[in-house]
Amino acid sequence: MHITQGLKRNAQIFADDLATVDGDRSRTWAECADRVARIAGGLRRMGVVDGERVAILALNSDHYFEYFFAVPWAGGVFVPINIRLAPPEIAYWLNDSGAEILFVDDNFLDAIKALDGKLETVREFVYIGDGATPDGMRNLEGLLEAPVPDAERGYEDLAGLFYTGGTTGRSKGVMLSHRNLVSNSYHIIPSMFYRQGMRYLHAPPMFHIADGLAVFGVTIIGGTHVFIPGFSPDACLEAMETHQITDTLLVPTMMNMLVNHPSVETRDLSSLISIVYGASPMPEAVIRRALEVIPGVKFTHAYGQTECSPLSTCNGPEAHVLEGPNAGLFKSAGRAVLGVEVRIFDDDDKEVPSGDVGQVCIRGPNVMQGYWKLPELTAEALRGGWMHSGDGGYMDENGYVYIVDRMKDMIITGGENVYSTEVENALHQHAAVAEAAVIGVPDDTWGECVHAIVRLKEDVELDEAALIAHCHTLIAGFKCPRSISFQDEPLPLSGAGKILKTTLRQPFWKNRDSQV
Amino acid sequence: MHITQGLKRNAQIFADDLATVDGDRSRTWAECADRVARIAGGLRRMGVVDGERVAILALNSDHYFEYFFAVPWAGGVFVPINIRLAPPEIAYWLNDSGAEILFVDDNFLDAIKALDGKLETVREFVYIGDGATPDGMRNLEGLLEAPVPDAERGYEDLAGLFYTGGTTGRSKGVMLSHRNLVSNSYHIIPSMFYRQGMRYLHAPPMFHIADGLAVFGVTIIGGTHVFIPGFSPDACLEAMETHQITDTLLVPTMMNMLVNHPSVETRDLSSLISIVYGASPMPEAVIRRALEVIPGVKFTHAYGQTECSPLSTCNGPEAHVLEGPNAGLFKSAGRAVLGVEVRIFDDDDKEVPSGDVGQVCIRGPNVMQGYWKLPELTAEALRGGWMHSGDGGYMDENGYVYIVDRMKDMIITGGENVYSTEVENALHQHAAVAEAAVIGVPDDTWGECVHAIVRLKEDVELDEAALIAHCHTLIAGFKCPRSISFQDEPLPLSGAGKILKTTLRQPFWKNRDSQV
Repeated sequence: MHITQGLKRNAQIFADDLATVDGDRSRTWAECADRVARIAGGLRRMGVVDGERVAILALNSDHYFEYFFAVPWAGGVFVPINIRLAPPEIAYWLNDSGAEILFVDDNFLDAIKALDGKLETVREFVYIGDGATPDGMRNLEGLLEAPVPDAERGYEDLAGLFYTGGTTGRSKGVMLSHRNLVSNSYHIIPSMFYRQGMRYLHAPPMFHIADGLAVFGVTIIGGTHVFIPGFSPDACLEAMETHQITDTLLVPTMMNMLVNHPSVETRDLSSLISIVYGASPMPEAVIRRALEVIPGVKFTHAYGQTECSPLSTCNGPEAHVLEGPNAGLFKSAGRAVLGVEVRIFDDDDKEVPSGDVGQVCIRGPNVMQGYWKLPELTAEALRGGWMHSGDGGYMDENGYVYIVDRMKDMIITGGENVYSTEVENALHQHAAVAEAAVIGVPDDTWGECVHAIVRLKEDVELDEAALIAHCHTLIAGFKCPRSISFQDEPLPLSGAGKILKTTLRQPFWKNRDSQV
Repeated sequence: MHITQGLKRNAQIFADDLATVDGDRSRTWAECADRVARIAGGLRRMGVVDGERVAILALNSDHYFEYFFAVPWAGGVFVPINIRLAPPEIAYWLNDSGAEILFVDDNFLDAIKALDGKLETVREFVYIGDGATPDGMRNLEGLLEAPVPDAERGYEDLAGLFYTGGTTGRSKGVMLSHRNLVSNSYHIIPSMFYRQGMRYLHAPPMFHIADGLAVFGVTIIGGTHVFIPGFSPDACLEAMETHQITDTLLVPTMMNMLVNHPSVETRDLSSLISIVYGASPMPEAVIRRALEVIPGVKFTHAYGQTECSPLSTCNGPEAHVLEGPNAGLFKSAGRAVLGVEVRIFDDDDKEVPSGDVGQVCIRGPNVMQGYWKLPELTAEALRGGWMHSGDGGYMDENGYVYIVDRMKDMIITGGENVYSTEVENALHQHAAVAEAAVIGVPDDTWGECVHAIVRLKEDVELDEAALIAHCHTLIAGFKCPRSISFQDEPLPLSGAGKILKTTLRQPFWKNRDSQV
């Protein structure tokens, strides 16, 4: 169980098949494996040793793909950085991971410049863009000299750190081993209908494990990877038609934009076989529209989290129907996928009966090794050998899981996880704020939007725009409140003195099924 | 990665789907999981502790299936016994494994009686037949009282001992862990087109890992198991039609009998989707006939060995064509399956170039932990981290493996492995034998037949029938020579003093492609 095994197998048995397509540039598996072995050689010559962290901050590309294989080939550990972070957050991820090398493309050169003096461990930059190599950086192509043999890390060796938000207000590095990522690939292959020869479109950002699962899974099954720098409905539809895409993964927000885009009906999308979506169930209207404009495509809702590499449950095409006995079943997150155990536990970690709400817990070879340098949080999350998702839910008699509450107080907006605490911390850093609570409110485009309820200190003045602008200096744009309600009375508190988010959410969600 | 995880998942999400069908008796996954937990309870009450070996000697049945899950559920290690062994061999397997409990059906009660006083470790017998419980045995149904929680052994814990012949003349117990067997299941799912809802016919004997792979794989994917006691073309065709079988695994000898059986053309076999065959490539005439009488069925040649749990390479439907660029490709054993590394090594364990013959070597999470109580043979077989198959072969430029010689001097007859040394040992135990060599000779029904070349001591007389009868008292019938040539001159020797089998084989194989 080595991340690199699939790449080597493809070079052996599918040598002339297309591995990657990025714009006009395409490479076979033989070429791809050769480049990976050479880039790994370059990394070794730069001093990368087994277990060393190598980070990347870039939009999607074939070079990003090569990074995901060259780093473990060289013995390193990949650390993909969220492209939407504010500079202080980027610095935190890099410093916390102890990354010594950073791959970067043209889009983030300014962000890197802004971090001058703030990076404690990065000693070298590798420029992976197509322009002129910036001063003080190496060029990816310049690394490609003599290939080296695969370092052959595998099984329990650490493969990557994927950062995720945290209730403590700081991102945590999720440690995923080779076994975690390879096992997840085995789990997704039948669950997401992966098959040899599939042509997969990487539209959502590759730093996220939701796309990462396809980086590894599509490679292991022997498919072709097609990249666009990022999602826009136009670029996505264009790529689907041009490259005869068969499979992709989107978040409901992207699905919504895609199926309602004017050109969806004029594009030839007949190559599409399967679309997986994650983060939250799709609104019925979007499913209806999708079944209308791209009929015959299999829709699958995947539920998971970074800590599970990420897949835990899937809800397949049989649930994406609007009539008959399965109508409405699309509201479920689906059932435990092959290889993964899912149970609903009460507060004492005892399994609850069907239909009762508890915490969704997961066990399997896909469950993370732990949080990087956070042994106490790790022990808490993995107590009893089960990953405690932090999501509240129930399971029906047929094993279908329904998520009814996110215990971690997390908002999912456009597929991105936002932890309320992180936003509240940012709000509290403004001198005028007395109390702040952040909740998700329903939004037809983004699923949820970040909304803050704030009580200011007495006798100060501050308007919505100014407070939002304050947040932008501290945290990623997607985490900043879209709207703020100010109130004079204190926020409602529970007996234990915690802010009652349920009460705050109620007026926004009262006509909705559930907050998911 | 626990063998029992798939069973529990099915009870959770496919509770009312059919798990097993044996004659008129069928059970759902909920029922099956309940029985397994109760049988495990019975085993625990009989004193089974973690890691204890529990053996079985029986024809195929749903009870055999339950055994494969109840034993690990109780914390034990399964030891399936070859149904074709001679009594001394059965005793050796049981004693060597240290099995304390033996499951047995009606067909082997006499064999067990014959072993009275010869079994050193077996302390209890569990009768799994439908008749009256023999004296001194427990009845399977009597074990079914209170269920116990799963012992939850998994990953590197030993799951089973599968005995295999050996060049040293003694069977070796191949130690397969939970990880080995679960990984192999993940590897076969895409390679053999496994899918939820498949209906699998267990026709070849279940003690063999070739059927065992389906016991675990079909369970993990959520299919239905159908059992017949053993293979006959009639029983097989009858079960295929009655139970709308979609998938099975056969050896070429069985395939040959099946497709040439008179009733194959009158049976409704339209439910068949995929037939996997193992042990050796299929003769072209059989493929031609198969494509004619069961058109549309996917044929896959699987190559592996017990030590690999067992799958290493597969040659799929694209190679089972008689015309076009792939004609003749069916002679290959196929390409490395997903998750498995296959390379051809020279005597120094260096990879040879494409087309050069060397030893087929395998690496992956499916490769055994080792041979039971044989650390030196284990170290030799697994040197450098690769399983040395003992088979000579080459790989073409597209990764297709061709087996050209079995280095271990093994004969495959009707899907059974026969190690020449074992037969030679039996021959040498006759006082009249001076020299003996055993080879495989071509046979249209069995693929190969066991043939012996013998030089008798001077001035003794012994005929073919008497010497074969002597062998039957020592080794399984399928291992005994079908024919013997006697000669007066000494057998040809190599420079190192080893018998030159190549020379002995030559006259029998001269008009054949290769000895495979």
